[in-house]
Amino acid sequence: MISKRIEAMPFSSIRKLTPLAKEAKAQGKKIYHLNIGAPDVKTPEAYFEAIKKENVEVLGYSPSQGTQELLEENANYYQKIGLNFTEDDLVITNGGSEALLFTLLATTDVGDEVLTSEPFYTNYKTYFHETGVKVRTFPTDVRQGFKLPAKEEIEGAITDKTKVLLISNPGNPTGAVYSKEELRLLGDLAKAHDLWILSDEVYREFIYDGLEFTSFGSFKDLEDRVVILDSISKRFSACGARIGCTATKNPDLQKALVKLATGRLACPYLEQVGATALYRLPDNYFDEVREEYTRRRNCIEEELGKIDGVFCSHSTGAFYVIADLPVEDAEDFCRFMLTKFEDQGETVMMAPAAGFYEHQEKGKSQVRLAYILEVEKLKRACQLIDLGLKAYKKN
Amino acid sequence: MISKRIEAMPFSSIRKLTPLAKEAKAQGKKIYHLNIGAPDVKTPEAYFEAIKKENVEVLGYSPSQGTQELLEENANYYQKIGLNFTEDDLVITNGGSEALLFTLLATTDVGDEVLTSEPFYTNYKTYFHETGVKVRTFPTDVRQGFKLPAKEEIEGAITDKTKVLLISNPGNPTGAVYSKEELRLLGDLAKAHDLWILSDEVYREFIYDGLEFTSFGSFKDLEDRVVILDSISKRFSACGARIGCTATKNPDLQKALVKLATGRLACPYLEQVGATALYRLPDNYFDEVREEYTRRRNCIEEELGKIDGVFCSHSTGAFYVIADLPVEDAEDFCRFMLTKFEDQGETVMMAPAAGFYEHQEKGKSQVRLAYILEVEKLKRACQLIDLGLKAYKKN
Repeated sequence: MISKRIEAMPFSSIRKLTPLAKEAKAQGKKIYHLNIGAPDVKTPEAYFEAIKKENVEVLGYSPSQGTQELLEENANYYQKIGLNFTEDDLVITNGGSEALLFTLLATTDVGDEVLTSEPFYTNYKTYFHETGVKVRTFPTDVRQGFKLPAKEEIEGAITDKTKVLLISNPGNPTGAVYSKEELRLLGDLAKAHDLWILSDEVYREFIYDGLEFTSFGSFKDLEDRVVILDSISKRFSACGARIGCTATKNPDLQKALVKLATGRLACPYLEQVGATALYRLPDNYFDEVREEYTRRRNCIEEELGKIDGVFCSHSTGAFYVIADLPVEDAEDFCRFMLTKFEDQGETVMMAPAAGFYEHQEKGKSQVRLAYILEVEKLKRACQLIDLGLKAYKKN
Repeated sequence: MISKRIEAMPFSSIRKLTPLAKEAKAQGKKIYHLNIGAPDVKTPEAYFEAIKKENVEVLGYSPSQGTQELLEENANYYQKIGLNFTEDDLVITNGGSEALLFTLLATTDVGDEVLTSEPFYTNYKTYFHETGVKVRTFPTDVRQGFKLPAKEEIEGAITDKTKVLLISNPGNPTGAVYSKEELRLLGDLAKAHDLWILSDEVYREFIYDGLEFTSFGSFKDLEDRVVILDSISKRFSACGARIGCTATKNPDLQKALVKLATGRLACPYLEQVGATALYRLPDNYFDEVREEYTRRRNCIEEELGKIDGVFCSHSTGAFYVIADLPVEDAEDFCRFMLTKFEDQGETVMMAPAAGFYEHQEKGKSQVRLAYILEVEKLKRACQLIDLGLKAYKKN
């Protein structure tokens, strides 16, 4: 018998329609993938060059906490963006995913509660189920740009079982960026209720409209309760490297995270060699990438705005928008797009947004779209959504 | 506050003395590492060549279950050794560690019990703590070659909370190989009590004295309850690749494992490219490796046998021996070797065996030694142990 905890765990809503997409492809359909945050920006050559240059005779375990070189370069990167983390404050992880797993394990016991905003990154659910914690949310609204609700509403979701505040900033799936004032409010609540702050900042560099990004790592009075969850996946368009990290100034937590890292022995060595090279790229690397994503963001918001009945949130960070569609059940529409719709042999795959909600009915008419394709492809994808909606209504 | 589950988790006894070793190295001491199963056998060139030849522009997520190529080659390998697993029965994991984590999560709920032999691989404890299961053991004895005890003794450790039988075969840390009859006995118990069988067979190729290896995957009547936990780390001397897998014919379990894999998105892409090449090596690759380890096994057993008061188990598999030392507290002796002893600037690092026991006092005078160094180095290491024991007595 399969365990209750894993039976109850939902299948990722980003990938749950993958079997349908596979079938569609087998039938020769071309699919524009807006369902998954897998950028098409080239991974910097430096990554592959460093790995190719590395001469190893015996591919042994690297240190559990990470290779010295990567720890140093990663710490360097934090220093450059004004965050006071040294290599002793870091643990290199198998992607941001393991960073979250380790941190949840170290900060919660079974039955404890995690507070987060709704909607939230659907894959968090995997780790809530694996670690046996319960999620509680405060609502944010697509029509209000996913701003924080009033303090009272957030505080109302805190119980004596709440141990952790988990925040994705810039927000996945919302594309929202929290202001310094919003973070201050959350930080004060965390202090008042003695909560850990898990700050998922993997999209830190993807900020548009000239906004300034504030990290939870920059508040001196919060440093004993903050952990940054991080990853090179999006930063350097290197999702397939699976290199992430945790960063905390809390020595007890750091000790626990190192213990967890030691338990799984090590991260892959060569990927750490590549990641080290990425952190040595010139600082202006992100400028070009940011410009490209700004163009894409502008494009998708403009094109979606033209479609009858579609409301699209303004995305100021990461590379996602939530679109509210004129359908009752967006998942059904997503299935329709893969199984019954095509235009000149082409269609679009989207992530139904309901899976990003604790109260799934709140997101039932919404989809999450990742603007990770070139502008011309995005235009075509939006056209397909428009045509698809018309066909769906007649269906 | 750190969670109770992680506070209670012991630090790996293979690596807990690492800070002392670091200090000793900083003082200029040369250390022979017999504490960790990190072979010095060269990783086959094919691994690095495949990675260097791979041309990727965008290092995207690979499929959550593993790349098609690796799944196929891995299945191929199983077919060749007579195990009927196809690619649909496999999930590629971040090392054998993640294979165990996923399988425990999918087969147990918090408070359930796992039955295993004592001593057992100490890092299993990491996952017992992470998943909230309790371990129960049946004893095996260094002086009896770690053979299975009587059926009644094993059965006596089974309760109505027991969900899983976890076996390492060939055994880490014991170096013991279970006979077909022993596996049959365990299999019948698993059937009688409806237990999953988690069979850790990462040392499958390391079998000496012409023994035949029987896999739990070869019993037709057990196939709905067996999961093989596997890894390329030892097989191809590629610990730093962190590529493992699960293999099961149970479709419900396979579905749960794929769901867990999907939750953490993917394994590193390039490491899978390298691993694929390893599974394409000629079948005789292992012959030479096996010969080399046989020489090392013979050497360490002979040399340890010469030391007064040392009893050493006969190792017929993997690359470990448990040595019973003429000291009261082997951990204290291991610390002594790193901090107070040296001969011509050299010493030895060993893993105290107590950490491999549920009832730690049973292993208090024992150490686990990995025979992963060349014969000449092993000889010197054993000489250092001899000298160390003499110095320790005077101490």
